[in-house]
Amino acid sequence: MNNTLLRTAPPLQVTQWFNTTGPLTLEALRGRVVVLEAFQMLCPGCVAYGLPQAERVHTQFPPDQVAVIGLHTVFEHHAAMTPVSLQAFLHEYRIHFPVAVDAPGGHGHAMPRTMRAYDMQGTPTLTLIDAGGIIRHQHFGRISDLELGAQIATLLAEANAPSQQEQHTDDAAGCPVDAARGDCVTASSDTP
Amino acid sequence: MNNTLLRTAPPLQVTQWFNTTGPLTLEALRGRVVVLEAFQMLCPGCVAYGLPQAERVHTQFPPDQVAVIGLHTVFEHHAAMTPVSLQAFLHEYRIHFPVAVDAPGGHGHAMPRTMRAYDMQGTPTLTLIDAGGIIRHQHFGRISDLELGAQIATLLAEANAPSQQEQHTDDAAGCPVDAARGDCVTASSDTP
Amino acid sequence: MNNTLLRTAPPLQVTQWFNTTGPLTLEALRGRVVVLEAFQMLCPGCVAYGLPQAERVHTQFPPDQVAVIGLHTVFEHHAAMTPVSLQAFLHEYRIHFPVAVDAPGGHGHAMPRTMRAYDMQGTPTLTLIDAGGIIRHQHFGRISDLELGAQIATLLAEANAPSQQEQHTDDAAGCPVDAARGDCVTASSDTP
Amino acid sequence: MNNTLLRTAPPLQVTQWFNTTGPLTLEALRGRVVVLEAFQMLCPGCVAYGLPQAERVHTQFPPDQVAVIGLHTVFEHHAAMTPVSLQAFLHEYRIHFPVAVDAPGGHGHAMPRTMRAYDMQGTPTLTLIDAGGIIRHQHFGRISDLELGAQIATLLAEANAPSQQEQHTDDAAGCPVDAARGDCVTASSDTP
Repeated sequence: MNNTLLRTAPPLQVTQWFNTTGPLTLEALRGRVVVLEAFQMLCPGCVAYGLPQAERVHTQFPPDQVAVIGLHTVFEHHAAMTPVSLQAFLHEYRIHFPVAVDAPGGHGHAMPRTMRAYDMQGTPTLTLIDAGGIIRHQHFGRISDLELGAQIATLLAEANAPSQQEQHTDDAAGCPVDAARGDCVTASSDTP
Repeated sequence: MNNTLLRTAPPLQVTQWFNTTGPLTLEALRGRVVVLEAFQMLCPGCVAYGLPQAERVHTQFPPDQVAVIGLHTVFEHHAAMTPVSLQAFLHEYRIHFPVAVDAPGGHGHAMPRTMRAYDMQGTPTLTLIDAGGIIRHQHFGRISDLELGAQIATLLAEANAPSQQEQHTDDAAGCPVDAARGDCVTASSDTP
Repeated sequence: MNNTLLRTAPPLQVTQWFNTTGPLTLEALRGRVVVLEAFQMLCPGCVAYGLPQAERVHTQFPPDQVAVIGLHTVFEHHAAMTPVSLQAFLHEYRIHFPVAVDAPGGHGHAMPRTMRAYDMQGTPTLTLIDAGGIIRHQHFGRISDLELGAQIATLLAEANAPSQQEQHTDDAAGCPVDAARGDCVTASSDTP
Repeated sequence: MNNTLLRTAPPLQVTQWFNTTGPLTLEALRGRVVVLEAFQMLCPGCVAYGLPQAERVHTQFPPDQVAVIGLHTVFEHHAAMTPVSLQAFLHEYRIHFPVAVDAPGGHGHAMPRTMRAYDMQGTPTLTLIDAGGIIRHQHFGRISDLELGAQIATLLAEANAPSQQEQHTDDAAGCPVDAARGDCVTASSDTP
């Protein structure tokens, strides 16, 4: 691990929020571990794995210790995944945690602004931000519940103890940004 | 079984086709067993069970004996499930069989025309039409692969033998049309 | 298909029966389709896929039309899979269809007698016998419920119509007899 | 939580070890978190959930920090689950972590000694022992990977920080000791 790689999580650049009474900011969430789940509503890996896992985290951990935030990072099929469609999607799939719509990239950028600021490679991407606002883990594709549970608990323990940091990146099934890597794929192996 | 309940499958009323070089008609498919999979792209039960099962049927049986047709029967969240969104959905979920967009109900009918003509109760609904064009089974919700495989094979055998008919209706998880029955639900039990 | 390959199912050579009031014979089951599920109680593929599928068949089809029979074909770890252990296994796993213990091979044969007479390659092996007592399909490893349901229904239809026969063999995950092929394996892909 | 409930994990009373070069003791494992997985080889919930989860823990965490130990706690069908059968079971199911055979209860006790000393209610039971040898969690039945990963990581963090203790007991599907609660059951709901 190289400490110089650690950086404060960039601010969320959001055009619309769902499942919340007002805009959220990472600054206001300092003191909690933040699980930022970047997804697209038509990404099969997000629907099958990423979002259900985020919902499990939302259920498992106390909200005053762990904040789960969905980030709709549309980087393809923009006309197909509008906020109107997203709203119906969140309703039908019963997603209850706050969800932000990432701000369009502008200037011909297909990738939206927050996604770019976080250097995400595709969807789903789960970013773990510690209580001090530092990005500690970023997983593109799937991460097992066992590993994710351990990482969250480690960050929670740190919040009450001298810091101990690591960096880790997984790369697995999902929708890659890089067109050369092809379409979204659903991971065939199951790691429950 | 009451033979008087059997009826010829009503014509498909369609505004747009995907995954086909031109419009299909049930009449032109006489001689084959037709599996008509009615779905909505934002119906969790359709995405998790109905469509993957239809794709398995599409793969398992010879196309000159069994024709699989998807029918996008939007009866709620109309603005969220447009043909533009559907096209991206079919691409991302890799659905390869022909899919028809059911014609809007008109005159304030939320339910589209073909769906209404078939008396469907919600999505997913799988309708089995025999080689003579008669509706033989209609399942709302989930049906096991074991039962479906048996029903298709029985209709295939009939096509080469004296007819033997039955009527059967299942009612299970999915998106019911009747608002009183609430939102779409995903069946929790798995019948592989 | 080569009709000369078709042969009458050899008699079951059995030392003990469970879940039945007396010995069964294939001759007495003429007129029904027979699903013969060969398994070992310590074969992971049998426990995960083969036996649950046989139980589903047992539940799905009327017993006067389809007879499901388990056959405990121990060809390895003989001391670990005695009838005493099998009895507890059947109880704990709630297997309700009749189960026969295949007769030991004798003369240094690790493979038991019925298993050898059927030329089985390992466990699980599902053998489909038609109403006339002819072996029609034999699957080593996994077979999808969709395909199995279709094959059973086709044989049921034949029982009431002029015969139409085919031969088919699948080879997939399980416990191979041939030591060169290594230990039992559990198929990683899921075909529900 | 009541600190007076916390107690040092009783010594393992074992007649035989598998997958290890010699007997293990909890005392020798001080400094590591210990995951003690009590199971019976013919307990469906153990085979389907408990043992695969223990194997995932064994794979996920460094062995010098987390020690996974299987404990074969036969309290029913004793003649069916002998060490000879267990050895074949461990081989076929590819269980690689150390497994101990719990010492028979003696004096008419169906329940073996270690199981009784730990007040276990049935199988599977997962006991989490902290680096100081104290029992911190005991789960009968299923526990989600997310929760288990968090509990292990919390104990690991504690090993390097001032202690913070809690007590928690889950009660779910499995093989209960108490005959009044009936046979072993396999949980129908899936918490991946």
